[in-house]
Amino acid sequence: MRDLRLMDPSFPGQYPAVLSRKNAILVSASNIRAVITASEVYLGNPSHKEAIAIAEAVRQQLMTSNMPFEHIALECCLSQICASQSAQLQVLRPYLRQVLHGLKAAGGSLQKRLDQLLPLKNQLDEMHTTLTAVARCLNDVLTNNADMAQMYLTDAQRHKKRKDSDHEDVELIFENYLMQVELISSDIKDDQNEITNTEEIVDIELDVIRNRILQVELLLSISAFMVALGALWTGIFGMNLKSHLEEHPHMFWVVTGAIFAWIFTSIATTRWFCKRAGLL
Amino acid sequence: MRDLRLMDPSFPGQYPAVLSRKNAILVSASNIRAVITASEVYLGNPSHKEAIAIAEAVRQQLMTSNMPFEHIALECCLSQICASQSAQLQVLRPYLRQVLHGLKAAGGSLQKRLDQLLPLKNQLDEMHTTLTAVARCLNDVLTNNADMAQMYLTDAQRHKKRKDSDHEDVELIFENYLMQVELISSDIKDDQNEITNTEEIVDIELDVIRNRILQVELLLSISAFMVALGALWTGIFGMNLKSHLEEHPHMFWVVTGAIFAWIFTSIATTRWFCKRAGLL
Amino acid sequence: MRDLRLMDPSFPGQYPAVLSRKNAILVSASNIRAVITASEVYLGNPSHKEAIAIAEAVRQQLMTSNMPFEHIALECCLSQICASQSAQLQVLRPYLRQVLHGLKAAGGSLQKRLDQLLPLKNQLDEMHTTLTAVARCLNDVLTNNADMAQMYLTDAQRHKKRKDSDHEDVELIFENYLMQVELISSDIKDDQNEITNTEEIVDIELDVIRNRILQVELLLSISAFMVALGALWTGIFGMNLKSHLEEHPHMFWVVTGAIFAWIFTSIATTRWFCKRAGLL
Amino acid sequence: MRDLRLMDPSFPGQYPAVLSRKNAILVSASNIRAVITASEVYLGNPSHKEAIAIAEAVRQQLMTSNMPFEHIALECCLSQICASQSAQLQVLRPYLRQVLHGLKAAGGSLQKRLDQLLPLKNQLDEMHTTLTAVARCLNDVLTNNADMAQMYLTDAQRHKKRKDSDHEDVELIFENYLMQVELISSDIKDDQNEITNTEEIVDIELDVIRNRILQVELLLSISAFMVALGALWTGIFGMNLKSHLEEHPHMFWVVTGAIFAWIFTSIATTRWFCKRAGLL
Amino acid sequence: MRDLRLMDPSFPGQYPAVLSRKNAILVSASNIRAVITASEVYLGNPSHKEAIAIAEAVRQQLMTSNMPFEHIALECCLSQICASQSAQLQVLRPYLRQVLHGLKAAGGSLQKRLDQLLPLKNQLDEMHTTLTAVARCLNDVLTNNADMAQMYLTDAQRHKKRKDSDHEDVELIFENYLMQVELISSDIKDDQNEITNTEEIVDIELDVIRNRILQVELLLSISAFMVALGALWTGIFGMNLKSHLEEHPHMFWVVTGAIFAWIFTSIATTRWFCKRAGLL
Repeated sequence: MRDLRLMDPSFPGQYPAVLSRKNAILVSASNIRAVITASEVYLGNPSHKEAIAIAEAVRQQLMTSNMPFEHIALECCLSQICASQSAQLQVLRPYLRQVLHGLKAAGGSLQKRLDQLLPLKNQLDEMHTTLTAVARCLNDVLTNNADMAQMYLTDAQRHKKRKDSDHEDVELIFENYLMQVELISSDIKDDQNEITNTEEIVDIELDVIRNRILQVELLLSISAFMVALGALWTGIFGMNLKSHLEEHPHMFWVVTGAIFAWIFTSIATTRWFCKRAGLL
Repeated sequence: MRDLRLMDPSFPGQYPAVLSRKNAILVSASNIRAVITASEVYLGNPSHKEAIAIAEAVRQQLMTSNMPFEHIALECCLSQICASQSAQLQVLRPYLRQVLHGLKAAGGSLQKRLDQLLPLKNQLDEMHTTLTAVARCLNDVLTNNADMAQMYLTDAQRHKKRKDSDHEDVELIFENYLMQVELISSDIKDDQNEITNTEEIVDIELDVIRNRILQVELLLSISAFMVALGALWTGIFGMNLKSHLEEHPHMFWVVTGAIFAWIFTSIATTRWFCKRAGLL
Repeated sequence: MRDLRLMDPSFPGQYPAVLSRKNAILVSASNIRAVITASEVYLGNPSHKEAIAIAEAVRQQLMTSNMPFEHIALECCLSQICASQSAQLQVLRPYLRQVLHGLKAAGGSLQKRLDQLLPLKNQLDEMHTTLTAVARCLNDVLTNNADMAQMYLTDAQRHKKRKDSDHEDVELIFENYLMQVELISSDIKDDQNEITNTEEIVDIELDVIRNRILQVELLLSISAFMVALGALWTGIFGMNLKSHLEEHPHMFWVVTGAIFAWIFTSIATTRWFCKRAGLL
Repeated sequence: MRDLRLMDPSFPGQYPAVLSRKNAILVSASNIRAVITASEVYLGNPSHKEAIAIAEAVRQQLMTSNMPFEHIALECCLSQICASQSAQLQVLRPYLRQVLHGLKAAGGSLQKRLDQLLPLKNQLDEMHTTLTAVARCLNDVLTNNADMAQMYLTDAQRHKKRKDSDHEDVELIFENYLMQVELISSDIKDDQNEITNTEEIVDIELDVIRNRILQVELLLSISAFMVALGALWTGIFGMNLKSHLEEHPHMFWVVTGAIFAWIFTSIATTRWFCKRAGLL
Repeated sequence: MRDLRLMDPSFPGQYPAVLSRKNAILVSASNIRAVITASEVYLGNPSHKEAIAIAEAVRQQLMTSNMPFEHIALECCLSQICASQSAQLQVLRPYLRQVLHGLKAAGGSLQKRLDQLLPLKNQLDEMHTTLTAVARCLNDVLTNNADMAQMYLTDAQRHKKRKDSDHEDVELIFENYLMQVELISSDIKDDQNEITNTEEIVDIELDVIRNRILQVELLLSISAFMVALGALWTGIFGMNLKSHLEEHPHMFWVVTGAIFAWIFTSIATTRWFCKRAGLL
């Protein structure tokens, strides 16, 4: 049967699926793969801890619930899918918060934080894709009357007639887990929005810091230029050429004073011009 | 009952839900959780101020309105959801305007403004997610005839027969609050657009300022380079080596004049070249 | 009546609405608010120039058209909504073209242009939101047979029976104005795309100019460094220490020549290296 | 008739429309405007070369095809719309390829390329908007049984009864041109994606080049600073003050050697530190 | 027949199509073009290796399967489409991983990596467009009862009556390959998300590195400025002017000490100010 290929655990990168077939329900998402019949549930990779959790849950539910076997198994599978995705998110979140907080602090470890952020973003994207696909599968089955009716495997086995539109129990199960999937999905969306917002703000903040560094650099360049002009004059008077001022008694102090006066007034003037032009 | 888990106030991060069940209507959004029956309304966290507001509103409406109890309670819950989201937005908006205005002014407090903007953006995103989910819930119920018909709990209790398609009163309530939710949602969208637009403009403005700083820096670098070349000549003539010009009577002034002439003409020429190349 | 709150002109930030009620049609968008009955039209803010335009249009149409009163009034309202949005866009467009052209010219007034662009972008976003909402309202009514049938208020008043599916006249009105709304909406979308495209190009252009400024700066830095090395040698020979070369007759010219030869060859070599590395 | 306004060629910026009316089919897109009746086709701007092409095509098809006149005319109009959009794209594409290739080459003409890219992007956006609207119109008619049935104008004129669902011929025409419109639309989307991808890569490449320029600048700054420290020492020994070392026979060479040793070791050390910090 | 144009292999840039016609099924996607009748399958470019693979698969399936010929052929075509797209992705992926890993490593070969990334992005976009179109085609046919019923060509040939709704076999084929197409499509989406995430992080990382380079540059500028001020003093005392300090026995050491003290304290003070201002 073509659909059974879906159950092969060695086939990686599965697209999630919930299929209603003649004598079986097939559930597949991330690590969980199950074929549910009226009396048994075959799990894809039985030694996996999620398969064990499903088996355990089915055993417990069988004692306390009076739903048909296939509905108990279906609910346990869907519940395990939600639980495992939700658990994964709970593990990611505090780490994500910490990384984002580190980004906002904008300290020296910014680059390390960014290196940590990349796999987090990839993982959230993947989880979102998976959950969207699961939600779509659940919705596809939920809106298909024939598929919903086929879900009553026990009744079908006992040749009990049912109306196609009478499937409120399964509908409630599907609606419930669809809502849970959408809750987790919307939590992930919130986290992704927070990452995007933080990145945007950090991006502008880096630009703001850069502009302020450049402004201080500009101020230094202006000052350095004026000092260089002063140094040019000292160089000129340092030349071993005859200026006929060599023996003037006060010329040393006159020139020194003139150089410093020039430096201070020119720096102040240029700074005022730059401020007026909105550069400083 | 599975749906009651939705009502648990200790369960955080709830996905909004409006569900129509056999003998009850369940309403859940942000802090509001209510189970409405034909004669009573159970509130999730009764000491919360929003629960108290609902209870008060139901009491007042009961005296003046002749709608069945469940519709009064439903309307009060939906009204409270809209009112609380709207109030939250009214608090945010003046603060947001102030932060955005501060961003556009581009003064020295830009970084502080950005730090204030981040939580605002996150909060608007969350509110938008919540309202989208509420709108979706309302729409889901509104387009489901069976769900709408089930909303007449009092009539159901009295075993009064109703046609499935006869539910104009509830439809009006839902349509009305759906429109209100969409109004708030569209207001938030407007605010988000304004933030995005401001960020984009601020981003380009920072780039423009940076380019202008760099242009002034370039002008300074050109000038400084020419001054350095002049200083090189003063250094050369300052060497304690014999140039045989030491005793020349006017050479000091010749060299000094040549240096300044060189500096001015070379700066002017290079500036003209850079202007033509579109750099200054 | 709950819907009448929509008509209150003191209630700002209205979400557009076109509602079909028992004995009235309600139209609300931006500044226009109207309640249309079989024989009268109540306008939200009657002294507003748009309300006056509607009243005038209804009066004129009544003389020439043989449609029922409510359809004439409805058409006048919808026509006024389209006309006022379209007029607003016609006012914005030449100004927008001018601002965008100024941005592309990339002259010194770039920052002023950006300050002008921000309110334009916000306004276009708001108009787009409004028109999308109007289109959605029109579509909602258009696809709802019951709502469309209720639009024949005059016939309803005269207790004239009509089939629910027989409402081609109103359908034509709605289809016509839906198309007009979509036309304006698509014009705004075009303008927004043009703004986005211009911003993206200006952003890259600023980057390109910056890189070219930095390249010239780099060339200057390299040259300045080489001159500084030359100046170091002049400084060394300027030290008041004994080099035993002081009296050498040609040493002055040897050193001067060596310094300039060094400066030119080293600048040429480094420039060649940078060119090969793709930096210049 | 209200719809005829659509046909007015003096009305610019038309929203595309394909409308099925009582005795006519109206087709309008970009420069093509046609009213098709059972025996005639009225073209909006008959002297336009596209109108002439349609007239010519109708004439040719009439001889070879046995479809009713209105379907031949309709097919010719739709075919001409697709052909003209497709031709426009074929003209744009080689030019676009050339501009994008020039962008990737990142030579000196980058700014010129960007100036060329802007109108191309605007034009592709406009074409995409037009085609999306055409596709939507075709789809609207295609999914409306009543509209499709009305398309048999000749049969309607001859009062030949037809079932509403029997319109396979027109359906095939519409499906065929819908597919063609989507093909062109998807080609434009591909081009837009390519532009976006190229812009993103060019943006990062400009950043990479800038960082490398800054790294070389940093290396130069470090070296220049060390040389400046060396020059400071030469300046100190050049002061006309008594250091009591003036007559020392080897001091000149000791100081010169020390200065160069200092410059080389300090540049090497600082460079090593910057490399370790990931800056060079 | 109009649809046969679709099969022309010389017609490039085909939009994917799966069409159900009277006596044939038409399948077209990327290089595969097939017309399937009740007993034969015509392949568009029969010498192409994908056409050969389909022919081979049909031959093998005919021996083992008891489905009607047209369903075997259809399944082989769809299977080949999925297989060829999937194979293309499997070839791209390790190369993409390597390029992205190279980008994150941020070494000197960044620019080369970016040049490699551009064609990869374009190719993934094209594949995604193709697969979306294929999925849409499959879905269009799947949701059209008449089209599905027409797929039983053998039964139609034998004039065997079938109910329109009885087509579970073809439905299973379509559902199965729709799921496979969506799986590949979602894998591509994952890869695109990963590229986008990496680009965003690399973009911010380049900004972070740039800011750190500028910070070190700023520190150097400050230090260089202070050294320049010191050098100005040495220049002043190097002037051939009378300062009356020339013969002072300790003045040389006093001035030298003062200069170095000034340099160290001023650098330390300015650095502390910049640190407090968040610039270093």
